[in-house]
Amino acid sequence: MIMDTLNYTDVNQLSLALIEAQLRLRQQQQGQQKSLLIIVSGIETAGKGQAVRQLREWLDPRYLRVKSHAPKLIENHQPIWLRYTPDLPATGQITIMFGAWYNDLFATALNPEYAFSQHDFHHYAQQIAEFEHYLMQNHTHVVKIWFDLSWKDLQKRLSKLDESGQLLHRLYGIDWHCKTQYKALKKLKKELASDWLVIDGKHQQCDQIFAENILQALQQPLAIVSCQTYQAQAIPKTLTDITPSDTRFSVEQKKQTIKQLSKKVAQLLRQEHRKVVIVLEGMDAAGKGGAIKRIVRKLDPREYDIHSIAAPEPYELRRPYLWRFWTRLEQGRKIQIFDRSWYGRVLVERIEHLIDDTQWQNAYHEINQFETQLVHHQTVVIKIWLAISDKEQLYRFEQREQTPHKRFKITPEDWRNRAKWQDYLQACADMLHYTEHPSAIWHVVATDDKYDARIQVLSAIVQRLS
Amino acid sequence: MIMDTLNYTDVNQLSLALIEAQLRLRQQQQGQQKSLLIIVSGIETAGKGQAVRQLREWLDPRYLRVKSHAPKLIENHQPIWLRYTPDLPATGQITIMFGAWYNDLFATALNPEYAFSQHDFHHYAQQIAEFEHYLMQNHTHVVKIWFDLSWKDLQKRLSKLDESGQLLHRLYGIDWHCKTQYKALKKLKKELASDWLVIDGKHQQCDQIFAENILQALQQPLAIVSCQTYQAQAIPKTLTDITPSDTRFSVEQKKQTIKQLSKKVAQLLRQEHRKVVIVLEGMDAAGKGGAIKRIVRKLDPREYDIHSIAAPEPYELRRPYLWRFWTRLEQGRKIQIFDRSWYGRVLVERIEHLIDDTQWQNAYHEINQFETQLVHHQTVVIKIWLAISDKEQLYRFEQREQTPHKRFKITPEDWRNRAKWQDYLQACADMLHYTEHPSAIWHVVATDDKYDARIQVLSAIVQRLS
Repeated sequence: MIMDTLNYTDVNQLSLALIEAQLRLRQQQQGQQKSLLIIVSGIETAGKGQAVRQLREWLDPRYLRVKSHAPKLIENHQPIWLRYTPDLPATGQITIMFGAWYNDLFATALNPEYAFSQHDFHHYAQQIAEFEHYLMQNHTHVVKIWFDLSWKDLQKRLSKLDESGQLLHRLYGIDWHCKTQYKALKKLKKELASDWLVIDGKHQQCDQIFAENILQALQQPLAIVSCQTYQAQAIPKTLTDITPSDTRFSVEQKKQTIKQLSKKVAQLLRQEHRKVVIVLEGMDAAGKGGAIKRIVRKLDPREYDIHSIAAPEPYELRRPYLWRFWTRLEQGRKIQIFDRSWYGRVLVERIEHLIDDTQWQNAYHEINQFETQLVHHQTVVIKIWLAISDKEQLYRFEQREQTPHKRFKITPEDWRNRAKWQDYLQACADMLHYTEHPSAIWHVVATDDKYDARIQVLSAIVQRLS
Repeated sequence: MIMDTLNYTDVNQLSLALIEAQLRLRQQQQGQQKSLLIIVSGIETAGKGQAVRQLREWLDPRYLRVKSHAPKLIENHQPIWLRYTPDLPATGQITIMFGAWYNDLFATALNPEYAFSQHDFHHYAQQIAEFEHYLMQNHTHVVKIWFDLSWKDLQKRLSKLDESGQLLHRLYGIDWHCKTQYKALKKLKKELASDWLVIDGKHQQCDQIFAENILQALQQPLAIVSCQTYQAQAIPKTLTDITPSDTRFSVEQKKQTIKQLSKKVAQLLRQEHRKVVIVLEGMDAAGKGGAIKRIVRKLDPREYDIHSIAAPEPYELRRPYLWRFWTRLEQGRKIQIFDRSWYGRVLVERIEHLIDDTQWQNAYHEINQFETQLVHHQTVVIKIWLAISDKEQLYRFEQREQTPHKRFKITPEDWRNRAKWQDYLQACADMLHYTEHPSAIWHVVATDDKYDARIQVLSAIVQRLS
């Protein structure tokens, strides 16, 4: 969409409207809160920098962040947008990013030494589209503005630049004096989704057009669109008819097997050229901690991260739901183990009514996309549900309460969760159904016999990594 | 100090005590909260990894973080500890770091291609000591544990390592088969402060000694030591007798001068091989925002960061006071402008009694050390106090209330602050006195005439950068 109309004749009036909209953004009530992410890109000298500088004068600059990152050629080890996630705005905030993930995409596609096919371009563009869609569905309003300029005007402006302007030239990865690159960029831009606003850099009032578009975005509420029809699933037998103990082997024999498997798991986890994300979910006392111990037993603590996921912190709640997992993955090591995970969205958050139905129903699809992107970037995602029987849980709870150095493991919340056993079973059944996808299948492991459970967990990992 | 005595005969009892101490750490009341940072270093194969793994089994692992960073050769562009600050524990948390900043120090000192003198070593060791002292004074308990091993035992253990152990070998920057390096490391360790606990890797109960020391640290309250004697300073004339408008020049002439100075400032800020931190402090309405605009006018928004410092967020309050500035500097660009800054510690936090007297009195010294370390690392620190008269502030407040698009700049808090004018004058006088040091002097600028003020601010920057 090309923007060239103005609504305000008095810029002081525009500034006032912007400041008021910004104030409302900060003071929005729970449920209507959003943040605004402005991505600015386009042709050099078309006026991006100036428009942003002017916006900073019209808005309250204390609540506006401007971020620019040097473009980086795409390496295939993580989703292209992941490294930008720490800088995403919290609710109430406005962040402007210069180019963001598009910088990396353009810089790579235009780099003559990089074999980047049309197919690659579309693949990454598609991943970006999915990611931006996720942001829009999770209270982060994304506005993308392209500053355009004709080849002739670009060359005219470049020739007039003084020394300080020449510096800007270096900030991007593109040679703006090269017509082939200019044309190639324009062509790439055309292949992106049509949700960009385009501002003609020759327009006298570029800055004002830019600011008025920001104002419009600020004023517009962000609606969540339902993207999945949900139907409650039958509860599979694997969740309720817990296999009894395997009596063919003694405990000693099982312990031996576990030791051997731990060694094998360590070997496989260490293999280069791939990352591994292991997700452990399950009812309380199903043995997540014990399983994790056996997974990492033969590793050095410097080789992996264990993330124990509890309720989000306030600053995490102010970001899209998956944000706290993105930032963990972004900083993390090659081997990442999640003791509970993003599945909290469709388990505890659903059951405790912390979110709307649409939100947890959409989450299935969102999680599938997220995991699929990880898998596309050299990551093996292994998801394990530890299934325990009602009776065995009760027994373990009581045991824990009687053992002083284990008592900390049991809290009133565990008992409250236990009272919602059926809700959890239903939520789990739905989760297993809706988030089973070829990139990341579920392993359901019966845990009433803890040795058998550990053998199964380790075996599943070995099988997936071999 | 060499540790080799044990208090617990039953490890379940030890585990229980650890879990209880950890729980108390998390539930500590306001004012007694602390976090625990455990730095583990020493000779390879001496049992660090195993001791940490064991500790994880005895503690509640959900509240224990283990961090290891690949060692990095020292570059002189930032304090050696800065890159680790994002991973510092929040109050209630325990974090174990493998080596932390000592890794970088050892790796650099032992690198034969790096010209690192004894003097350099002591310089960095001193900076680390200051930093760790700061942490201890700001509710972060630092415990450093060295796992030692004789040359003979090291070689014996190395020869027994299987393939998976060989990998560990690569994690460090030191060649453990080289006796010269081994000896050099031992020598360097001796030159560090004596506040390390040393555990002999040959001791049968290494893990337990380690855990008992952690337990002791958890149980020990952290006292803040007063490090500065404070005396109220006389209020300097520059803060009260605000110079009247310079009538030799017309407003038009002044505007011209400002334009030229903005250009010059941009040129100087852009120079390579140094970073610049500009701190703007002053009473409300003294014109910080206007001054910043003129500083950055000729820069592109992608070249600098403006940090508007408001009250800390809850997750920031759970870290040492300077933490939120460290993390900003760590991520930030070459040019960093602070609209308010760490001086809030000795201004608003002092005046509003948000902290004890000892805390703000200590802050003078702490800030001086912090700024000096920045200056030692190719950073120019420019501190400006914008002085306004009582009368002029009132005039500007009223003006703002009458101008719709400026009204957002004035809040009830500004009026409350105004009522504490004398307190702010006193705090400012003390601040100017106690934080004036050759590495980072203060510039006091009279701002009743806003054009004169801008000229002076820009001139001060030009002078400091020329």
